[in-house]
Amino acid sequence: MATILDGKKIAAKLADKVKENVKRLNEKKIYPTLCVIEVGNDPASKIYLRVKKNLAKKVGIKEKTLNFPADIEQAELINTIKQLNDDEQVNAIMVQLPLPEHLDQEKIIEAIDPKKDADGFHPYNQGRLWQGKTDIVPATVRSVMTFFDEYNIDLEGKNALIIGRSIIVGKPLASRLLEKNATVTIAHSKTRNLADLTKKADIIVSDVGHAHLVTESMIKLGAVLIDVGMNREQGKLLGDVDYEACLPKASAITPVPGGVGPLTVASLMRQVVILTEKQNYGR
Amino acid sequence: MATILDGKKIAAKLADKVKENVKRLNEKKIYPTLCVIEVGNDPASKIYLRVKKNLAKKVGIKEKTLNFPADIEQAELINTIKQLNDDEQVNAIMVQLPLPEHLDQEKIIEAIDPKKDADGFHPYNQGRLWQGKTDIVPATVRSVMTFFDEYNIDLEGKNALIIGRSIIVGKPLASRLLEKNATVTIAHSKTRNLADLTKKADIIVSDVGHAHLVTESMIKLGAVLIDVGMNREQGKLLGDVDYEACLPKASAITPVPGGVGPLTVASLMRQVVILTEKQNYGR
Repeated sequence: MATILDGKKIAAKLADKVKENVKRLNEKKIYPTLCVIEVGNDPASKIYLRVKKNLAKKVGIKEKTLNFPADIEQAELINTIKQLNDDEQVNAIMVQLPLPEHLDQEKIIEAIDPKKDADGFHPYNQGRLWQGKTDIVPATVRSVMTFFDEYNIDLEGKNALIIGRSIIVGKPLASRLLEKNATVTIAHSKTRNLADLTKKADIIVSDVGHAHLVTESMIKLGAVLIDVGMNREQGKLLGDVDYEACLPKASAITPVPGGVGPLTVASLMRQVVILTEKQNYGR
Repeated sequence: MATILDGKKIAAKLADKVKENVKRLNEKKIYPTLCVIEVGNDPASKIYLRVKKNLAKKVGIKEKTLNFPADIEQAELINTIKQLNDDEQVNAIMVQLPLPEHLDQEKIIEAIDPKKDADGFHPYNQGRLWQGKTDIVPATVRSVMTFFDEYNIDLEGKNALIIGRSIIVGKPLASRLLEKNATVTIAHSKTRNLADLTKKADIIVSDVGHAHLVTESMIKLGAVLIDVGMNREQGKLLGDVDYEACLPKASAITPVPGGVGPLTVASLMRQVVILTEKQNYGR
C-alpha cells in the first residue's frame, strides 16, 4: 500500500514556515507584498485569486489585486507592470493567466522585472533554473519538489518520467529533477510508447489534463506517482492517474484533490518571501 | 551500413549560405561583426580562435579578437563587455571559454547583452529557447539539429536519448528535440542503467567526453548516433561512440573527427548573421 502524499498537511507546514519568514522580515520593518494583475472576470480565476488572497492574509503577506477590464490595451497593461517594477513597496508581481486573446502573454510576462517574478515564468528566470539557480521556481514545480523533500524520496539515479512539457510544469520540473541527479524523460502528446516508458519509471509526474491516463497496468511496483492533473468529469475532480487502482501498487502517490493542488498557493507565498529576501539581502 | 553524416560537407554548405547572407547584408551597408574576448593564452583556445578567424574571413564576417592578460580583473572585463554592448558596430560578442579561475564565468556571460550573445549561453536566451524561440542557439546544438535537417531525419515521436547535461549542449539540445516532438531522455554520470536506455533509443546524442562509451551491443539496429565527444587518447581523437563497431548497425552516424566538430564554427557564423538581422530588422 502506497504512502499517501498529503498535500494539505504539507501545505499547512509550508504556510507555517512562510508565516515565520514573514514575521522575521516584519521585525526588520520589511513587509513582503504581492501584487496580482487580473484582467477581466474569469470565474475560475476569481476562485483561485480568493484562495491566494486568503492564504496571503493568513501568513501575513500584503496582497493587492489590480483588476483591469477585459479589453485593456496591451501598452497600458505593460505600463502598469513597469510602474510596479519601479515601486519599492512591491516585492512580487504575478499576472493571473489565462489572459484575453488580444494580449500577447509572452510580452506581458517579459515586462515583469525578473527580480519580482512571482510565477517564475520569465525566460531569464527559467534559463537561470536550467543553469542551476533554484531560488525562483514556478509554484507547481516547487510543490512537486517539496513532496520529494518532505517524504524523503531519493531521486539520485532514479528514472523520472515527466508527462507534459509546459513551461509552467513539465519543462522547469525537468531541470529540477536533473539537478537532483535523476535520469529524466519528458513525454508528451506525440510520444508513441507511453506505457513502455511508464513501466520503466521509478517516479512519474503527470501534468497533461487527461483523466486516468496512467493506469495500474502501466506502472511498475513501487513507483512514486505525482499527479498534477485536474480533470473535471461529471462534477468530479479526477487526476491524470487512476488513483484507486494504483494505490496498492505504488510506493507513494498524491491524491486528487488533496495532493499537489493545495500546496501550490503555499509555494507561491514561499516564492514571495524568497523574492523579498533577495531584494533586501541580495542573496 | 549506416549513412555517414558528413560534417565537413554540411559545414561547407552552411558556410556558403552564411556567405550569401553576409553578401545581402553588405548590399544594405550592414557589416556583421563578431567580437571575441580572449583572456590569457590557452593553447587549445588559440587553435580554435584561429579556425574562427579564418572562417569569419572566408564568409565575410568582420572579426576582432580582444586579448586580455590572464590576471585581468573581473570589473575591467565586465566593463569591456558593456562597452561592446553599446558599440553599434559590434553585432555579436563571445567570451572564449574556459576563463581563468578567478573570474566568475556566470557573471561575465550575464554581462553580455542577450541580443549580442553569439554563444547563446545567457540565461535569458536559454530560457527563451525552452519557451520555443529558436533563433539564438548554442553553436553545437545548432550543428546537431542541422544534421537532422540536412539528412531528413524525422524526430517526431522518436525516442531521443541525450547523454550529458551541460548548458552548452545537453540541456539546450533537449529543448530543441522536444520542440521537434521527440520524446527526450537526459542521462548523465549519475544514470544507473545507461545500456537499458541506449537500447531503446532511436536517436542518441552523446556529449560526455568518455571515449567509446557507447558500444555496438548498447545500441538498437537502425539507431541514429550523433557524437559530440572529443577524446584524445594516445594521440588519436576518439568520439564517445565506438564508430567502427557501430557503423554496420546504426542507420546514421557522425564520425569523429569530421562530424559535429567541423560544423560548429559554421553554426557560430550563422548565429552572428541571425543576431545582425535581428538587430537591423527586429525579426
